[in-house]
Amino acid sequence: MREEMRSPSPWFEVRFDNLDREARCIEGETIFQSARRAGVRIVGACGGRGVCGTCIVRVVSGDVAVQTATAGPAASRTKEWVRACLTRPSSDCMVEIAARSIAQVVRAEVGGEEIVIAPDSAVRGHEVVLTPAVLGHDASGSSADADRVVAALRSAGVTRLDLFALRELPGMLREAGWRLQAMIRGDEVIDVRRADGRNLGLAVDLGTTNCAGFLADLDTGRRLASLGIENPQTGYGADLVSRVNYAIRSPAGASELQSAAVAAIVGLARDLCEAVSATPADILEIAVCGNTAMHHLLLGLPVSQLGRAPFVPAICESIDIKARDLGLAAAPGAYVHLLPNVGGYVGGDHVATLLATENRWSTATTIVMDIGTNTEISLVCGDSITTVSCPSGPALEGGHIGAGMRAAEGAIERVRVSDGGMAIEVIGGDEQAVGICGSGVVDTLAAMVELGIVNRRGRILTNHAAVEVRGDDREVVLAPGVAVTQNDVRAVQLAKAAIRAGIDCLLRQAGLKDDAIERVVIAGAFGTYIGLESALKIGLLPALPIERIDQVGNAAGVGVRMVLSSAALRDRARSLAERCRYLELGSLPDFQRIFMRRIGFD
Amino acid sequence: MREEMRSPSPWFEVRFDNLDREARCIEGETIFQSARRAGVRIVGACGGRGVCGTCIVRVVSGDVAVQTATAGPAASRTKEWVRACLTRPSSDCMVEIAARSIAQVVRAEVGGEEIVIAPDSAVRGHEVVLTPAVLGHDASGSSADADRVVAALRSAGVTRLDLFALRELPGMLREAGWRLQAMIRGDEVIDVRRADGRNLGLAVDLGTTNCAGFLADLDTGRRLASLGIENPQTGYGADLVSRVNYAIRSPAGASELQSAAVAAIVGLARDLCEAVSATPADILEIAVCGNTAMHHLLLGLPVSQLGRAPFVPAICESIDIKARDLGLAAAPGAYVHLLPNVGGYVGGDHVATLLATENRWSTATTIVMDIGTNTEISLVCGDSITTVSCPSGPALEGGHIGAGMRAAEGAIERVRVSDGGMAIEVIGGDEQAVGICGSGVVDTLAAMVELGIVNRRGRILTNHAAVEVRGDDREVVLAPGVAVTQNDVRAVQLAKAAIRAGIDCLLRQAGLKDDAIERVVIAGAFGTYIGLESALKIGLLPALPIERIDQVGNAAGVGVRMVLSSAALRDRARSLAERCRYLELGSLPDFQRIFMRRIGFD
Repeated sequence: MREEMRSPSPWFEVRFDNLDREARCIEGETIFQSARRAGVRIVGACGGRGVCGTCIVRVVSGDVAVQTATAGPAASRTKEWVRACLTRPSSDCMVEIAARSIAQVVRAEVGGEEIVIAPDSAVRGHEVVLTPAVLGHDASGSSADADRVVAALRSAGVTRLDLFALRELPGMLREAGWRLQAMIRGDEVIDVRRADGRNLGLAVDLGTTNCAGFLADLDTGRRLASLGIENPQTGYGADLVSRVNYAIRSPAGASELQSAAVAAIVGLARDLCEAVSATPADILEIAVCGNTAMHHLLLGLPVSQLGRAPFVPAICESIDIKARDLGLAAAPGAYVHLLPNVGGYVGGDHVATLLATENRWSTATTIVMDIGTNTEISLVCGDSITTVSCPSGPALEGGHIGAGMRAAEGAIERVRVSDGGMAIEVIGGDEQAVGICGSGVVDTLAAMVELGIVNRRGRILTNHAAVEVRGDDREVVLAPGVAVTQNDVRAVQLAKAAIRAGIDCLLRQAGLKDDAIERVVIAGAFGTYIGLESALKIGLLPALPIERIDQVGNAAGVGVRMVLSSAALRDRARSLAERCRYLELGSLPDFQRIFMRRIGFD
Repeated sequence: MREEMRSPSPWFEVRFDNLDREARCIEGETIFQSARRAGVRIVGACGGRGVCGTCIVRVVSGDVAVQTATAGPAASRTKEWVRACLTRPSSDCMVEIAARSIAQVVRAEVGGEEIVIAPDSAVRGHEVVLTPAVLGHDASGSSADADRVVAALRSAGVTRLDLFALRELPGMLREAGWRLQAMIRGDEVIDVRRADGRNLGLAVDLGTTNCAGFLADLDTGRRLASLGIENPQTGYGADLVSRVNYAIRSPAGASELQSAAVAAIVGLARDLCEAVSATPADILEIAVCGNTAMHHLLLGLPVSQLGRAPFVPAICESIDIKARDLGLAAAPGAYVHLLPNVGGYVGGDHVATLLATENRWSTATTIVMDIGTNTEISLVCGDSITTVSCPSGPALEGGHIGAGMRAAEGAIERVRVSDGGMAIEVIGGDEQAVGICGSGVVDTLAAMVELGIVNRRGRILTNHAAVEVRGDDREVVLAPGVAVTQNDVRAVQLAKAAIRAGIDCLLRQAGLKDDAIERVVIAGAFGTYIGLESALKIGLLPALPIERIDQVGNAAGVGVRMVLSSAALRDRARSLAERCRYLELGSLPDFQRIFMRRIGFD
């Protein structure tokens, strides 16, 4: 007699006490790696490469080896804040995650106005009542369950029944007394259910940093619940380019990113359904928008042709596929609809933004921009829409910022000049500040410009009490332990220069000056909270009268909900996407010069 | 530091020397169970329930406990022939499988004439040549790979590209210099390949006992290779009813049966492709026919409504689904086409037989029968086709027969009366007889009738030297160790009574007498080898002039190949299926009486 043996895999138990979670850390792994594997949500903007400093933890007990960021010899430290991605346990450990390094379940931003959608769903219910099956053929010429259901629905245009729905049919018919609700999409029955079933739809705005999910009643178009989570792909890099490169490097990497995107949608579906006492099997249709890279990574499409010039998407047309082909839990034959892409990295999320904001730009020369880790900008001028994509990076969302964090409790979200100093506002009010989010960063920079703490090239000066000098580094201290460093200033400079240069290029191509812009529509979660005066002061936006600027929140989320509930609006989205002409900024000969001109503060 | 531990799973190594295979036998398991799990092909007609005696092995070395068939105390025996399903190892063992219990790779029976099929495949190739991608939009309005391919194929009716094919597209386009072959099915591109790719199709006749696979060139309709294997579901019971019951008892059981059917097709595809130096990814279309139970079990459809009155199929219409939805390896977007069912257990294999033999029955009153474990019989009379299904059981194929075996080397396949005794012919010629196959069983019974060894009720008499009496049992010895027992005679009586009663009922319904039958078409592997005189003598067939009877071999296999290669013949199959009226024998009030009348030999 023998025993089944496996090669020994030494591991340590790592307990994350403030999340009430545990992870197994295989010998040699970092705390960050084991947390990622176990789905413990530590922020890691750079993907665990030791360069961003966002994955801060404290080892409360146990032995670890900490590699210093400067690659010096490993030291053993506990009770100090260290980077999870440079810390390797050598025993069981108890670990505390810094508040700002806990990836939060963020608020879902659903835009200023709630748009009323005339329900016109791709899926429609149709009642079927059959006589109980008897021996031999009935009037339809067949005695088989599916043939009789399809015959009964022929006048509704039905010709076929999805295989997975067919698997449910015989049991359902007999349990429900030969009366059921057939859920029809096009010529296909995609689900069979009791007449009292719930007809739900899921809309997902799959952003680079945040995913917003919306559960809707397909019969009424009404929103039932919404939820925002961090995109779990952020563990593989905060910006698009690092994720695309990760996917290009190996098929396994591409597959990990796909799984992460699928897991995000599966998680949203589960949590949203739970909130309304439903199950994912009640979801009859899913609509997803995202930029082209998110779209491709979710679908398992190759990205190497997208990641380098001439930046070619595998597909721009909208796609309808079975949810099961992506491993998404939903009704048996449910489809996922992916909004069309525009070109380059400009994807269906921007199309959704255009769709949701069309009433604001249809008659005026307008800049429509979706500020995020990647910022998409369209110039609408008469019938033409020209669109660019700017790699603005995560700085405006608090990423790649030393003390940066999501817009969650404890984040400094407002900074004003007050009595020659800076006054801060913290999310959650009384709470002690633990970090700074995007709007706070822009405000701080604007205050520094106003106070003259920063010169026109972005160098922090030492002429103010708020500035501390640490060796070669200078930083502006906002609260105990929360400062904006010279590196942070540089990151914001790059972001605002990318966005502003994008606007400049669009105007040049159209032969327009700044003041020809009659309206600016700013979408995106960050765009909702940004202080417009600050944005104007640091030159992120052209110097326009503030009343020309609209902050519309997560318009992409509104747009994807519109598309979920209305087939007519799908056609509208398609025609908007076709109307957009994608302009690749990198192909413009003087883009670099324009970009450099927008780096400073003058 | 800890080591990964798993609960100990004691097991023994069982070596099957004559197959050069090994299996792990978990403690408490029988040799049959471990062989089935490991895919070692031991015949097991009853599914390992200890009732059929077809899984005979000899334990050459090692310790085992053998449960006696009469449920007496377990005994430890080696060097004796025992049933694998009643033998539990208690140490590592060396096991020899009896020749007749080795499930053979059988000859693929492909019918008398080779039908020439005008190729008219559902999948057609179309060359696409694109200009290399450049920055910005091309004339089609999009720069994306798939949009440009679809635009180039719009005049060929294409509107979309399968997701899995899309995943291949960007790499393929760039590697192949922007020139490729798009494989189109309906309005969809299901695969993209280099111009020199092979366009293969797979046709499968999924029989209850045997599966026949045919690899064809879709461009020419030509058959490239064919292969027959035993249906691995036979391990779960030889006849339909035991498998249907196994699936009804638990979802896990249904799932095992589905996996077995899928594995059979995957194995056929792999072996057939290997034979022509191709890979399953070259397979662009799969066509499958089988009886309704095989069809449902393959598709994962519920069978409880099929297994009891009124015997309702989930679906009769033909089905086209993605091969991937069944886990079948093929080209990225390949479809499986399942032929339509008729009703009850009469499925697409009978439709395929009708299609393949249409030239033989289209102008005469004809009985078309597919003899197998389940026997389907159609009476064609003018425009009407009436069809019944008879549970003839595996006896006519050598199953559930004490010395029964497949038509393989060592099987007695012919028995003639000679000099008042019986002369045998063995497959493989000189070989010593190790068992008896279906045609041999029928011949033996006919010889027994001729020699008066059996009375009109089927009782073996003791008036002949070939008859041996063992306790209550009597048997006719054909060769050393190979005999036909009283039980075997009973099994053949039941089979022939079922078939003959089916014919009787069809004739009665149509108001016809036996001699109104102008033609009998006998299909099926067994039907090819059966001695017609013997079949007439035992009353399996009505007493008709022998020249009215055609033996056409595996007509279902020919029919499924026709459907694979021709869309027009798919329509023809569909209209044949619609023409068939299914008649449930169990619903006829005097079926039992007719059946009992056909049990004897008079």
